[in-house]
Amino acid sequence: MNKKLILRVLSTILLVESAAMALALLVSVYYQDAGIVPLIQSIIVLLAVGAPLYFFSRGYEHNFRAKEGFLVVALSWLTLAGFGALPFVLSGMIPNYVDAFFEAVSGFTTTGATVLTVFEGQPKGIMFWRSFTHWIGGMGVLVLTLALLPHMSGRNSHLVRAESPGPTLSKLVPKMGDSAKILYLIYTVMTVVELIALMAAGMNLYDAAIHAFGTAGTGGFSNYGASIAAFDSVAVEVIITIFMILFGVNFVLYYKMFTGGWKDIFKNEELRWYLSIIVCVIILITLMILPQYGNVGTALRYSSFQVASIISTTGYVTADFNVWPIAARMLILVVMFMGSCAGSTAGGMKICRIGMLTKQGVREVRHAFQPRKVQVIRFEGKAVEEGILHQVCVFAFVYVALMLVGGFLVSLEGLYDVETNLTAALTCISNVGPGLGKVGAVENFAGYGPFAKLVLSCLMLAGRLEIFPILAVFHPSIWRRG
Amino acid sequence: MNKKLILRVLSTILLVESAAMALALLVSVYYQDAGIVPLIQSIIVLLAVGAPLYFFSRGYEHNFRAKEGFLVVALSWLTLAGFGALPFVLSGMIPNYVDAFFEAVSGFTTTGATVLTVFEGQPKGIMFWRSFTHWIGGMGVLVLTLALLPHMSGRNSHLVRAESPGPTLSKLVPKMGDSAKILYLIYTVMTVVELIALMAAGMNLYDAAIHAFGTAGTGGFSNYGASIAAFDSVAVEVIITIFMILFGVNFVLYYKMFTGGWKDIFKNEELRWYLSIIVCVIILITLMILPQYGNVGTALRYSSFQVASIISTTGYVTADFNVWPIAARMLILVVMFMGSCAGSTAGGMKICRIGMLTKQGVREVRHAFQPRKVQVIRFEGKAVEEGILHQVCVFAFVYVALMLVGGFLVSLEGLYDVETNLTAALTCISNVGPGLGKVGAVENFAGYGPFAKLVLSCLMLAGRLEIFPILAVFHPSIWRRG
Repeated sequence: MNKKLILRVLSTILLVESAAMALALLVSVYYQDAGIVPLIQSIIVLLAVGAPLYFFSRGYEHNFRAKEGFLVVALSWLTLAGFGALPFVLSGMIPNYVDAFFEAVSGFTTTGATVLTVFEGQPKGIMFWRSFTHWIGGMGVLVLTLALLPHMSGRNSHLVRAESPGPTLSKLVPKMGDSAKILYLIYTVMTVVELIALMAAGMNLYDAAIHAFGTAGTGGFSNYGASIAAFDSVAVEVIITIFMILFGVNFVLYYKMFTGGWKDIFKNEELRWYLSIIVCVIILITLMILPQYGNVGTALRYSSFQVASIISTTGYVTADFNVWPIAARMLILVVMFMGSCAGSTAGGMKICRIGMLTKQGVREVRHAFQPRKVQVIRFEGKAVEEGILHQVCVFAFVYVALMLVGGFLVSLEGLYDVETNLTAALTCISNVGPGLGKVGAVENFAGYGPFAKLVLSCLMLAGRLEIFPILAVFHPSIWRRG
Repeated sequence: MNKKLILRVLSTILLVESAAMALALLVSVYYQDAGIVPLIQSIIVLLAVGAPLYFFSRGYEHNFRAKEGFLVVALSWLTLAGFGALPFVLSGMIPNYVDAFFEAVSGFTTTGATVLTVFEGQPKGIMFWRSFTHWIGGMGVLVLTLALLPHMSGRNSHLVRAESPGPTLSKLVPKMGDSAKILYLIYTVMTVVELIALMAAGMNLYDAAIHAFGTAGTGGFSNYGASIAAFDSVAVEVIITIFMILFGVNFVLYYKMFTGGWKDIFKNEELRWYLSIIVCVIILITLMILPQYGNVGTALRYSSFQVASIISTTGYVTADFNVWPIAARMLILVVMFMGSCAGSTAGGMKICRIGMLTKQGVREVRHAFQPRKVQVIRFEGKAVEEGILHQVCVFAFVYVALMLVGGFLVSLEGLYDVETNLTAALTCISNVGPGLGKVGAVENFAGYGPFAKLVLSCLMLAGRLEIFPILAVFHPSIWRRG
């Protein structure tokens, strides 16, 4: 095993994380809040661990084997969250380490499930760090790290692939590192545009940054207990709705847009599925909740925000969908499986997989009474290999199986009900945030014990890394020599 | 389309059904109950429709195309249930036709979900008919019909395949009709053995017949509101537990046993998975409910009965698992997906599919860090074709998707909660019977409106016919000429 290279990647990540934490420290210093000391302590720990490892790992060889790649991806994310939890613990905001780890995993995986029960009055620097983890995790931290490691930027695309959502990763330009830089640029520009829009709608810079990070990473952490409902502003809701949907789109499309490929965007099949599903579900839910809210405007306002939030796996809320009619809650549940487009910052099974699965289901029906006709499945205008289709199916099965196993493990603590525990597992593996029942829109995850929180943390990581890197870590052969 | 042949099959089914109903009439006559007139009326209707069609369809050609095969299978089951509901309506036991249709579908598909709220004091002949539908539906009515149609018994194995549970149907002997006769013989002998055992345990002949039918078909209808708990007899529970498990085993294994293939039985991989899962789940649930029942004996008694009942998709109950700890309920939920062995009378996804899916999940993890190694999946000692594996995956996806869609459609009536509606859909597509929540072990399906009952009826048929024949009926091309 190429231990030196693994250490080099992990130590680089710690150094990057300490730099990110320094930004939170600046916020704390500006507001002169209680976050200053714990953030300084955390940065010292990160540097004290990261810097020696970085120097120790000099002279690393450049190539991973696939086996090591998966280990690196999984370890990177565990390192990130394990150390990222320090400010929460040291500031006393979340004194229990397991709780803080859950919060950090939820942040970096852009889930947005929280154990916080008191939001207002917390140190602004710590809350900034909490939301900034969304932004860091949204685009993938390895993409960033590889862009920083000069020798690696041209190689090891399978590492980035393991971290990138969706069944395929289009290289924009021949060198992976350059692609990463372009993606980060698009990501940054869109975040800044949203931040400016939110300020124009009346938010102060701090709130605008927090919610721009939460939207960009499709995370969902807010610094208000009432989430976006705290602003009670149609303008804010419209802006966030639009940006949640935008951040659920494959970033490659934005690159194509800037390089003149307008036509490709409208031809994109996944985007058409994505937007069609959003429109249909918004209309259906609007009709269902109409009696509850009395007029179409209000129903549409709540429906569109919540649907955009769940399908983009952000998890911001402006209405408690737990009190919506049962049919609306069932639709929310179905949408929680889906997620957004591959290559976006969102979680879930991804729309392109849902599309391919649907087409396979239809083909199987057709095949049943036309057994001799060979039927090729096309997606994005191209015939999809049977191997890929098969993989997508296995992925879907493992996804549902992990959700069931996770829901069962969480239940071992003896708490809550089937609805709560199943949707807790689902919302975590899909990186959404809120579930139904006792983990619903206006609830939180504080009630679960440490075991359930660790199980849910695993599910969040499995969801963010698209399952297999995390499962691989549990496989004995990855730890074997040779 | 070969209309004459379709009519010949459907009319034969009506004649077979009228003969089966005559048996129920004998029971009514013996007990001189209120079932005599409605059963005579029903038989007259069946003959009045069936006999002319039978004569009209003389001179039919012998071959189906696959397309027609699916239509015939679906129409056969709809005919069976549609006319089988008559005695319920005419006797006033279930006055509403949709309710009666739901009950008949539940009977023939061996689900055992009921809309009855009063069990005691109903006409014995009608209750006999209700349970006899389990026995008829258990082995598949087309198997029987084809055995009766002399010209067809050697052909059209794909028709029987569409009706038989599991991904493959082993022909026991070269002629399909002979295989059907052997299977029906095994089925009858086992039912009679159970009936005698139940009488030895103290049941009267009538009760023993009702519960032998319910067990043999893995259905679950009882003539007591308290189901098997009404007998409060360990002997009865042990006998039924053993037979529920036995009827969940592939019948081909029994044939092999009688023809001397003892070794094949212990080598059977699906059987080993099946028994291992049963043992594990029984132990786990016993541990979980131990605090509730105080001693191991009682906990084991309730755990083993309920687990055998759910995994065999029978649905008899002796304890209300709705009040068990949440982890036990989650396990029950997971087992509801599984079902028993292919080629048994049970429903669910089938253990061999669960086994192949699990192996595919493990392979995908292995593949992730050994991408170049080709890994063949073996089941029952043989390499499984990738095409079959792929089909199994698509089946699993469609199964879960139908459950979600069904749960959503049921929710449109605005009733109940996520747990109830999802498990109602699951228990129906898996042909189990009870769900959780408001359709739990000691509840029934009477509360749903007609729309939900029709949706659930479709799910029961889809589950019994392994989905694709029922879905195919909704596909436009099946109704097209040519």
